[in-house]
Amino acid sequence: MIDLRPVAFVIGVLLSILAAAMLVPALVDVVVGHRDWQVFVASAAVTLFVGVSLILTTRTGWASFNIRQAFVMTTLAWTTIALFGALPLAFSELDMSVTDAVFESMSGITTTGATVIVGLNGAPPGILIWRSMMQWLGGIGIVVMAISILPILRVGGMQLFRVEAFDADKVLPRAAQVAAAITGIYLSLTIAAALMYWLLGMSGFDAIAHAMTSISTGGYSTRDASFGYWEQLPAIHWATALVMVMGSVPFVLYLRAVRGDLLVVLRDSQVRWMLAILGVASLIAAYFVTDRGLLAPLDALRHGTFNVISIMTGTGYASTDFGQWGGFAVVLMFVLMFIGGCAGSTTCGIKIFRFQIVYAEARVQLRRLTQPHGVFIPYYNNRPIPDQVAQAVMGFFFVYTLSFALLALALGLMGLDFITAVSGAATAISNVGPGLGPIIGPSGTFTSLPDAAKWLLAFGMLLGRLELFTVLVMFSPAFWRG
Amino acid sequence: MIDLRPVAFVIGVLLSILAAAMLVPALVDVVVGHRDWQVFVASAAVTLFVGVSLILTTRTGWASFNIRQAFVMTTLAWTTIALFGALPLAFSELDMSVTDAVFESMSGITTTGATVIVGLNGAPPGILIWRSMMQWLGGIGIVVMAISILPILRVGGMQLFRVEAFDADKVLPRAAQVAAAITGIYLSLTIAAALMYWLLGMSGFDAIAHAMTSISTGGYSTRDASFGYWEQLPAIHWATALVMVMGSVPFVLYLRAVRGDLLVVLRDSQVRWMLAILGVASLIAAYFVTDRGLLAPLDALRHGTFNVISIMTGTGYASTDFGQWGGFAVVLMFVLMFIGGCAGSTTCGIKIFRFQIVYAEARVQLRRLTQPHGVFIPYYNNRPIPDQVAQAVMGFFFVYTLSFALLALALGLMGLDFITAVSGAATAISNVGPGLGPIIGPSGTFTSLPDAAKWLLAFGMLLGRLELFTVLVMFSPAFWRG
Repeated sequence: MIDLRPVAFVIGVLLSILAAAMLVPALVDVVVGHRDWQVFVASAAVTLFVGVSLILTTRTGWASFNIRQAFVMTTLAWTTIALFGALPLAFSELDMSVTDAVFESMSGITTTGATVIVGLNGAPPGILIWRSMMQWLGGIGIVVMAISILPILRVGGMQLFRVEAFDADKVLPRAAQVAAAITGIYLSLTIAAALMYWLLGMSGFDAIAHAMTSISTGGYSTRDASFGYWEQLPAIHWATALVMVMGSVPFVLYLRAVRGDLLVVLRDSQVRWMLAILGVASLIAAYFVTDRGLLAPLDALRHGTFNVISIMTGTGYASTDFGQWGGFAVVLMFVLMFIGGCAGSTTCGIKIFRFQIVYAEARVQLRRLTQPHGVFIPYYNNRPIPDQVAQAVMGFFFVYTLSFALLALALGLMGLDFITAVSGAATAISNVGPGLGPIIGPSGTFTSLPDAAKWLLAFGMLLGRLELFTVLVMFSPAFWRG
Repeated sequence: MIDLRPVAFVIGVLLSILAAAMLVPALVDVVVGHRDWQVFVASAAVTLFVGVSLILTTRTGWASFNIRQAFVMTTLAWTTIALFGALPLAFSELDMSVTDAVFESMSGITTTGATVIVGLNGAPPGILIWRSMMQWLGGIGIVVMAISILPILRVGGMQLFRVEAFDADKVLPRAAQVAAAITGIYLSLTIAAALMYWLLGMSGFDAIAHAMTSISTGGYSTRDASFGYWEQLPAIHWATALVMVMGSVPFVLYLRAVRGDLLVVLRDSQVRWMLAILGVASLIAAYFVTDRGLLAPLDALRHGTFNVISIMTGTGYASTDFGQWGGFAVVLMFVLMFIGGCAGSTTCGIKIFRFQIVYAEARVQLRRLTQPHGVFIPYYNNRPIPDQVAQAVMGFFFVYTLSFALLALALGLMGLDFITAVSGAATAISNVGPGLGPIIGPSGTFTSLPDAAKWLLAFGMLLGRLELFTVLVMFSPAFWRG
């Protein structure tokens, strides 16, 4: 059997942090005089009680984590946080059902951004800031996890991104240092984004709420029309596009940039690929929208760029209802949903580096066809791709496609139509946010879906966020046998 | 430069065979007294003239094929046959445009089955039998190619299916023997199927036409309602389902079965996987249709099984408009489109063995996660999967997905709506036949699409039929440099 004490201990610590975080929306509601502050304080008390109990009962008697405990800890931690994060939603003035509260909370903590709330414009400020905070916490959580835990778990080829610091003998101090430094950068970027939004004309509240959900590529907005609300302030769209891209870059690069090498971000091949895909897709979208006479060229470029970036990075804001642009835009967004941003960022999806690896393999494959006796080696970042990484990436692609297909089928079985089922599965597993089509598209919400579909989608979000294998390995009997 | 003489010689031989084949519909039209017989004779004359000219001018001065010539020959041969096969369609009473004729011909020869003809019930019998014959010829063409040329070209992992006979010193005599034996089996199965259909109540003409398009998993029908026309003869649906499955089995297995080992087909792991997937999908579809109260249980089982088999094997018949079954059926059919049948059969799509290989890789991957220092080797048919095969399959998956996505995007750019663009791309590249949705779905045709979309789809069919790389390698400058 697996010793779950260290797992419970870490979850206890995380729940205590979550409880502390709940005091922020409580404070906001106190300031504006909304009675929901009591809900947040009560939720914080419950969460803190459970967290501290877990810490106290499991704080001794174990030495360090083994790999199986790390898997269990990762999956359980995200699930538990989603459940406790749902408490304020369930008991607030919005009076959400348990299903809706967990859906919204899971969508928050996984930085998905799919919402079941209709009427954001009039929602209590505490709830709005809590939704943003969950995405912000989920964003930094995944970045720290991507550089510390995932490479050790070697999930889907993530061992490529093992930061050398973590391999050294004194693991913990260095790991903690790197994590702290990155958290500092994340916080600074958030403050910078909030200031920028505020200077460009957003209210202070909206600026802070959106800064948190754009750097985390989360996508929750405080407005029903999302960024369509700021159509009269186009500079805000461009600024937000920039912040979403910044959230999609491997955060370790910022660490190096801060240490003096300012251009390191632009030299990274993963970042270059991402920018190239975003650029081409934005230009095509803008051209198409202009060509159809839907928008003036500059507006087409702005909305094209904003929404392409929003969907591909998995943020999920919308500056306009691109569902009205016709078949091409819908197909384009559907394809972009799967891509995602860079590994080590706050984005989800398949991620750029995996496309680079399969592209390298496919190129080698093409050369081998004509020169069967030649020796060709696929490279990533000027280093040969280890066989195990290539196999892991291949396995990841397969399981991603399979999970997507099964999720779409299950949603179809629940009575959803084609575009809702297919885009719903894609948006959940890639943590994008809105789907496509009239129901869950950029101008809709997930509120009308059956409860079972909401639970499935929430599971899909968790699956995608934890790179599939972290969750799926739990279902393997061999895992528990040891 | 590549010496194209052997390429031209082989294409000359194939065109001469095509010309001879055109005399069959000519004869049919003579018998029923339809004036289109002249079109077939004229087309045969032109085709024969070009074929014989190619043979005469290139029959000497070259020794044997090298690998690059084999690539060029394969791609050029299928393209040329599609173009000459379009002649009778373009000049017949139907008076099709060049685009429509080439689309229909490419859809025939690649065993796709997508049609632009409205009014099959009243179409001239010569044209109907010619459409069936093109699929029949395309079917045997791909089977012979899959066991002789593709393994040597090592496209997408096909080297796994190198028949030992072809590796021996005396290549040609053995290869010709195997090909002849398999052609004999193909012919026998076709005759058996035609007899069966006739005994079950089809007219002799319909029985022959459908026998040819079901064993080749082609899907052209002589009726606008496809197999919905025989709703009153349910046994025909079951019989056709069986024949479609038989066309999806590796034909070399029949060779071994004929030599005495009758159960070899059922012992093959690729066949077992295929049957398992077909069985599960059919049962789920039948359950869903019954549960929704759309059909009585037995009818639901029949239509569920028939259409699941038709779509997954890439045949493309419809026994009813499953688009009316709701979201689940549409999503299910969409997923099944990509799967296909066994390698070495007449089916297209990704094919079962590639799923087996990535599944084996993904399993090993899952085990490695918990036991990082264990040694796990992926197996296929009780043999370790060679690294090069695994990489080739991985490259294939990536290029398949990429081609599908680009094709769907291009179709979207031409103004097609989401479901038409996405399912059109899938049905073309997997050689299925009908798409999904109201326009190109099981109850529609491709006739209303813009010409550019038809050319793109025809290219997609060729790409899918020749396992992508055979065509794509032509676009690589390194290929022509040598």
